Amino acid sequence: MALYSTVSNSPKLLRIAIVGVGLVGGEFINQLLRFPAPSPFRIVSLTSTKTTLFSPDGLHITTSGWKSDLTQSGLKPDLTVLTRELSSLVKPGQDVVLVDNTSSNVVAALYPRFLRAGIHVITPNKKAFSSELSLYESILSASLESGARFLSEATVGAGLPIVSTLKDLVATGDKVTKIEGVFSGTMSYIFNEFSTGKEGGPSFSSVVRIAREKGYTEPHPADDLNGADVARKLTILSRYIPSLRSALQDGYQSVHTKSLVPAELEGAETGDEFIRRLPEFDAQFDKLRADASEENMVLRFAGVIDVKSGLIKADLEKYPVTHPFATALGGSDNIVMFHTERYGARPLVVQGAGAGAAVTAMGVMSDLLKLV
Amino acid sequence: MALYSTVSNSPKLLRIAIVGVGLVGGEFINQLLRFPAPSPFRIVSLTSTKTTLFSPDGLHITTSGWKSDLTQSGLKPDLTVLTRELSSLVKPGQDVVLVDNTSSNVVAALYPRFLRAGIHVITPNKKAFSSELSLYESILSASLESGARFLSEATVGAGLPIVSTLKDLVATGDKVTKIEGVFSGTMSYIFNEFSTGKEGGPSFSSVVRIAREKGYTEPHPADDLNGADVARKLTILSRYIPSLRSALQDGYQSVHTKSLVPAELEGAETGDEFIRRLPEFDAQFDKLRADASEENMVLRFAGVIDVKSGLIKADLEKYPVTHPFATALGGSDNIVMFHTERYGARPLVVQGAGAGAAVTAMGVMSDLLKLV
Ligand SMILES: NC(=O)c1ccc[n+]([C@@H]2O[C@H](COP(=O)([O-])OP(=O)(O)OC[C@H]3O[C@@H](n4cnc5c(N)ncnc54)[C@H](OP(=O)(O)O)[C@@H]3O)[C@@H](O)[C@H]2O)c1
Ligand SMILES: NC(=O)c1ccc[n+]([C@@H]2O[C@H](COP(=O)([O-])OP(=O)(O)OC[C@H]3O[C@@H](n4cnc5c(N)ncnc54)[C@H](OP(=O)(O)O)[C@@H]3O)[C@@H](O)[C@H]2O)c1
Repeated sequence: MALYSTVSNSPKLLRIAIVGVGLVGGEFINQLLRFPAPSPFRIVSLTSTKTTLFSPDGLHITTSGWKSDLTQSGLKPDLTVLTRELSSLVKPGQDVVLVDNTSSNVVAALYPRFLRAGIHVITPNKKAFSSELSLYESILSASLESGARFLSEATVGAGLPIVSTLKDLVATGDKVTKIEGVFSGTMSYIFNEFSTGKEGGPSFSSVVRIAREKGYTEPHPADDLNGADVARKLTILSRYIPSLRSALQDGYQSVHTKSLVPAELEGAETGDEFIRRLPEFDAQFDKLRADASEENMVLRFAGVIDVKSGLIKADLEKYPVTHPFATALGGSDNIVMFHTERYGARPLVVQGAGAGAAVTAMGVMSDLLKLV
Repeated sequence: MALYSTVSNSPKLLRIAIVGVGLVGGEFINQLLRFPAPSPFRIVSLTSTKTTLFSPDGLHITTSGWKSDLTQSGLKPDLTVLTRELSSLVKPGQDVVLVDNTSSNVVAALYPRFLRAGIHVITPNKKAFSSELSLYESILSASLESGARFLSEATVGAGLPIVSTLKDLVATGDKVTKIEGVFSGTMSYIFNEFSTGKEGGPSFSSVVRIAREKGYTEPHPADDLNGADVARKLTILSRYIPSLRSALQDGYQSVHTKSLVPAELEGAETGDEFIRRLPEFDAQFDKLRADASEENMVLRFAGVIDVKSGLIKADLEKYPVTHPFATALGGSDNIVMFHTERYGARPLVVQGAGAGAAVTAMGVMSDLLKLV
C-alpha cells in the first residue's frame, strides 16, 4: 500500500526529447529552461537535421548555450536510435515525450512507432494529423494500445485554445454543428488589408508583397495562397468530430480548397518570380473586391466545416461588413466560431494571433502541462 | 515492476459525490450518466438540502429516476459524515471528487477539509474562491499538502475556456498585462439592449423588466445590478495572476465595484417592488446613454484587471461603437480579452454564452476530464 502511494503522489517526472530547434523549437527550449523550480521536466535530447545531443538523465544546457552545444556535438541524428533509447526510459511515474518542432513528413511518419513504445507525442507540426487517413488511424491505434498520448494544440491557432475547446465540446457530449473561421494568419492579414468593405484600396499584389516583406508569408507566397495550410487545419479539427472522423480519406487533399494562386503562376519557381508576376492578376482580385463591396461585404479566406452536410471547405468567402470576420479581425488574427447544439444561435468564439514562435511554443507547453 | 505497470496503465477510476442537484447539478448528472461506456466515472453520492444517497461502489441511478430516488431517500444530508466516507475511498488509481453544484457558503467553507483528505473539488460555485483571502489560502495549502486538486472552470464564463486559458498563459510564462471583459450574462443582455450607440432607445427599467420576465436575472434584479457577481469573477481570475494573488484581502468586497442599484432602492425587499419603483430612475440612465451616444460610445458593464497598476474594478464603462464590446456582443454573451506580453497589441479573445445550465455543466465536466 505504501508502495502504491509513493507512486501516485510523487510528482511525475517527464523526460523530453526535442526534434526541431528552429523558431518554435528554440523558443520552446527557452520556455522549458525558464520553468520555475522544482521543474518536472528533463530535456534528454535535442535534434536538428545535422546533429543531436542525448543524455538519459537530462542535458546540462542553458538558454544561452544550447545552440552551440548542439552545433558542436559530434553525434549525427538517427531517429531509429532515438526511438530505442527513449523506449528504454519509459517507466511508471517517469513519462517520456517526443516534441516534434519540425514540419517534416519523415518525423511525422514515426509517430505510431513512438506511441507504440509508450512515448507521448506533442507537436505543432500539422503533417501527421492532416495527411491520409491510414496514418492517422495508425496513430490512434498505437496511442490506444500503449496509453501514450498525442497532443496537437499548436497545430491550429498556435497558442489559442482551439483544439482543446473542440475536444471538450465533443467529450462532454455537445453536438458541434458547424465550425467557421479564419485559420491562416497570412490570409487574415492579406484580406484585412485588401478588403475593408469600402470601395477601392491597395492592389492585391502590393498587399502580398508587403506581407512577404514583413515576414508574414512563407518565402514563396504561393505556399500560403494555395490554401493548403487552411485545408490541413480543417482536416485536424474534422477528425475530432465523431461523424467526420473518417471523412477525409486523403487528408487535406480531400478538403474542397480554392487556391488563390493564378493557374499561370503555378509554375513560378521562386517567391521572387511569383511576386514579380502577381500584378498581372490584380484586375481579377479588384473585381472580386468591387463586387463584394457593392453588396456591403468583405472578402475573407475562410475555413468551414459543416457537420450536417459533411462539407469541408477552404475558400474565399464574402461576409457582411457587420460580421465579426469584418469588424473584429485585425493584424494577422485567427478567429474560430464553434456552432453547437448547447451554444445555440450564438457561437463560442476564440480569437487572437494564430502564429508566431512565442505563442506557438506556448501551445506546445500547454500540451506538456496536461501530462504532469 | 509488473505491479507498477498495472497501476499506471489501468484507466483511473473516479468516484464522484455531487452536492447540489438543481439546474446545473441536474444537467451535470445527466451528462455524466450519458458518458459513453466504458465510463471511468462512478457517482457515489447525491445530496440536496433535504436528503442524500450514498453507495461506495456507485449508485444505480438513471437519468429519469435519480430525482425521485433522491427525494424518497430516508437519509438526511450530513457533510461531515460525507467527508469521512469519501476519505476512506481515496486509493491509488481510484480518485474521489466532490462536485459542489450549490451556491452555498457552508459547502464552500468545507473545501479545505475535503482537499486535505485527498478529495478533489470541482465547482461552478464562486463563493470559496472569491471570498476572503484566508479561505483561499487554506484551500491552496490543503491542495498542496495532499495533491488533491480544485478546479473552477465554470465559475467564470460557464463552459467558455476562460479560467483554463488564464492558467495556461501564466503557467507557460507569459505575462498578463490586462484582462477586460463583460463577465455577467445578465449585464451583457441589459446593456446590449439598452445602449446601441444610437440616440434614444427603450428605458432602462423596461429592459430590466423584460430581462427578468425572460428569466435572465435573479428573482431580485438587484442581485445582478449590484455588480457583486462580476466582482466575484474578477477575484477568481486575479488570484491566478502571481502579482495579484494576495491583492484582494476581503475577496470580492475589495474590488472597486459600481452598483447600479439606486441608493433609494437598496431597501427594496422583493424583486417585484424593485421593478415597480425602477422607472423613477430612468432619467438618470437616459442621461448616461445620451452622453455616451453623443461621443459615439456605448455603455457596457465591464470588469477590468489592470495588472501593472493593480486596479481591479467592476464598473459601467464607455466603449467606442467600433469596439468589439459594441460590435461583436449580442444576446447574453460574455466576452473576455486577455492582453499579454506575448500577444502584444492584439489580445486573445474568448466569447460566447456565459450562463445556462447545459454549458455550465459542460464546464464542470471539462474539469472532470482533466482528472482522468
Ligand atoms: N512559426 C510559427 O509561427 C508556427 C505556427 C504554428 C505552427 N508552426 C509549426 O511549427 C513547426 C516548426 O516551425 P518553425 O517555424 O520553428 O520552423 P523552422 O524554423 O524551419 O525550424 C524547423 C526545425 O526542424 C528541424 N528539422 C527539419 N526536418 C528535420 C528532421 N527530419 N530531423 C530533425 N530535425 C529536422 C530543422 O533543423 P535545422 O536546424 O538543421 O534546419 C529546424 O531546426 C512547423 O511544423 C510549423 O508548421 C509554426
Ligand atoms: N445556472 C447557471 O447558468 C450558472 C452559471 C454559472 C455558474 N452557476 C453556479 O452554479 C451553481 C448552481 O447553480 P444552479 O443554477 O444549479 O442553482 P439551483 O438550481 O438553485 O440549485 C442549487 C442546488 O444546491 C442545493 N443546495 C444548496 N445548499 C445546499 C447545502 N448546504 N447542502 C446541500 N445542497 C445544497 C439545492 O438543494 P435543494 O434542491 O434541496 O434546494 C439545489 O439542489 C451556483 O453556484 C451558481 O452560481 C450557475
